Amino acid sequence: MRKCYLDHVATNPLLPEVFEAMLPYFKEEFGNPNSVYDLGIKAREAIEKARAEVASLINVKPSSIIFTSSGSEANNFALKGIALAKQGQGKHLIVSRVEHHSVLNTARSLEKMGFVVTWLPVDKYGLVDPETVKKSIIKETILISITHASREIGSIEPIKEIAKIAKDKKVLLHADGVATTGNIPVNIKELGVDLYSISAHQFYGPKGVGALYVKEGLRIVPLIYGGIQEGGRRAGTENVPAIVGMGKAAELARANLNDRMNHCMKLRDRIIEGITKIPNVYLTGHPQERLPHHASFVVEFIEGEAMLLLLSMKGLYAASGSACSSKALKSSPVLLSMGIPTALAQGSIVFSVGIGNTHEDVDYLLTEFPQVINRLREMSPFSGGWGKGSEGDKCYTGG
Amino acid sequence: MRKCYLDHVATNPLLPEVFEAMLPYFKEEFGNPNSVYDLGIKAREAIEKARAEVASLINVKPSSIIFTSSGSEANNFALKGIALAKQGQGKHLIVSRVEHHSVLNTARSLEKMGFVVTWLPVDKYGLVDPETVKKSIIKETILISITHASREIGSIEPIKEIAKIAKDKKVLLHADGVATTGNIPVNIKELGVDLYSISAHQFYGPKGVGALYVKEGLRIVPLIYGGIQEGGRRAGTENVPAIVGMGKAAELARANLNDRMNHCMKLRDRIIEGITKIPNVYLTGHPQERLPHHASFVVEFIEGEAMLLLLSMKGLYAASGSACSSKALKSSPVLLSMGIPTALAQGSIVFSVGIGNTHEDVDYLLTEFPQVINRLREMSPFSGGWGKGSEGDKCYTGG
Repeated sequence: MRKCYLDHVATNPLLPEVFEAMLPYFKEEFGNPNSVYDLGIKAREAIEKARAEVASLINVKPSSIIFTSSGSEANNFALKGIALAKQGQGKHLIVSRVEHHSVLNTARSLEKMGFVVTWLPVDKYGLVDPETVKKSIIKETILISITHASREIGSIEPIKEIAKIAKDKKVLLHADGVATTGNIPVNIKELGVDLYSISAHQFYGPKGVGALYVKEGLRIVPLIYGGIQEGGRRAGTENVPAIVGMGKAAELARANLNDRMNHCMKLRDRIIEGITKIPNVYLTGHPQERLPHHASFVVEFIEGEAMLLLLSMKGLYAASGSACSSKALKSSPVLLSMGIPTALAQGSIVFSVGIGNTHEDVDYLLTEFPQVINRLREMSPFSGGWGKGSEGDKCYTGG
Repeated sequence: MRKCYLDHVATNPLLPEVFEAMLPYFKEEFGNPNSVYDLGIKAREAIEKARAEVASLINVKPSSIIFTSSGSEANNFALKGIALAKQGQGKHLIVSRVEHHSVLNTARSLEKMGFVVTWLPVDKYGLVDPETVKKSIIKETILISITHASREIGSIEPIKEIAKIAKDKKVLLHADGVATTGNIPVNIKELGVDLYSISAHQFYGPKGVGALYVKEGLRIVPLIYGGIQEGGRRAGTENVPAIVGMGKAAELARANLNDRMNHCMKLRDRIIEGITKIPNVYLTGHPQERLPHHASFVVEFIEGEAMLLLLSMKGLYAASGSACSSKALKSSPVLLSMGIPTALAQGSIVFSVGIGNTHEDVDYLLTEFPQVINRLREMSPFSGGWGKGSEGDKCYTGG
């Protein structure tokens, strides 16, 4: 059976070059980077080289990159770290409704601690209106957190415009760049954000490592206290092989970004064109301002979970909502915030392509997916299929 | 030049079998464990297998193991997670003065948030007196945190006795088991603790992964919010290869624990016997109740850093204080708490052996280390060497 991995928003395969770069640090170069002898110094140098590569990918100074264990940790760190550092100035945050759970749930935890959060609405494409951000800022506002792009709907938010407003109003801006970094050009100096979250396994680096960009001179309270690692801002023995892998993945992403984007966009556009021809299937997110590798839809009358299972039986791997919540079986708050009705939001499906995918993969998807939809709709009580099923021959039999 | 790695408290080399177990998860098995298709399911199964192995190593149920990115994260999670969950009952914590920085500094951060910490004194061996713990408990006490063994001085604390007191008084007990797990037998049911921190790279597993044991039914507030990973208690895409490696390392540690201990103790005892013969060198920590692989000393008239550098030039790798602070160039709070004077505490040195060390390594150390001490003492202004140096021939010249 053909296997097509179309779930690059969930995780990416590791590039062989990245694995090769990591290899020595699983073997002879196993030192603790905080040790003063050569074995430690080599590990330290490897980390600093990786830091420079990651910094270079988003055009910042290496000293402003703090390695974390994931994008989720970076998001938690940004929100809690700034909230605690700035609470003397005010306890008001502004957060969009299309954030990843690691931002949404961290903001909710801050609400429990006495912070006040203004939850920004989005339009039908999931986009935040910079004017709404402007109107939401009050004297007590200390931080705005808006994703650079949502992994559920692919829409790229107008971060640059929001950053100008934030700067004018002297409010800090954090952007979740987990979906964007390594997938579209990210230039922090042009974007103008103060904090930016990154995850390595979203651009063919290893799992278990991410980073938070923190603008030079900005004080942030640690999420993980302890030793003097990462300038005393993030404790714990450094995950040297993973950090090295992130550095190599950043180097390769920077070198190959245009080729990757062009490759992915061609496949994505064919997927969007093909799938939106199916009746009662709608693109979610912005038609143009979206991630180059991202095609997301809602399919009327059927559920995302069922589509995923039938697709996987054909070797087609996709997601419904974010990977972190696809097992939670709840309607996505991101889709609901865009005005998509609950029933329709249940039919969410995301195809995200990568550099390993081919036009044949898209051909295969476009052949198989309509059949999956037809089969499920025949079984659906909402699409008329259930009525036919009353004869006993079209009911779901687990097959 | 001979190379002897005698710094296993800083980090351990990865066992080849552990690396082999991790390998598929860097390659074909790269799925996100939260995905519903086979690639995700395999990753999920691998994580659950690893969880069972880690649980088995410390004799608990798999569901009570939460994977983290490090021992430091586990310590932060335990203290902050319980403090926040239990603050309605009281805001008093009891923490020993011989804790790792990830406990010390987390407790200090809680003090800033309005919690009150009683800092437990220790005796000259760095041991906490259970009676002192008992006396420190008040109505508002919600958590006691005491290391199972300090990586700086090797002393094993009387956790079992303290656990009885904590249970009697209905106060939760967290023990930092980073130095102990995989190095001595750890049976949580016998120990009776409620929370226990673990780090994989302390028992020949990979960096970038640790775990927190949390007693069944005990509510803990997440440190990292987000998706539903780890039962909603620790978000972020799971570091699958590292978790698998931790599982394999746990399996091997359990199978080989006695052999490892016997091997290490023989080497350790020779090191202690040999080094304490050098004039004005003193063992730190308890002579018997100590980690089987751990030999720690203070050397009069000279500084740890200088010893480490000269030793490393001879291929001998050791630590001064904890790896997380050896670059901080401060006197260790652990040594000071034991009543060791500041000047003497500066001369701290720790040799920690592992399964790869041999008697020849110890021979080499015992030949070279006295020479290092002599050389440094000749240069020291405190040991009389400086006086001789007034003739110009014994002053430190950077060589």
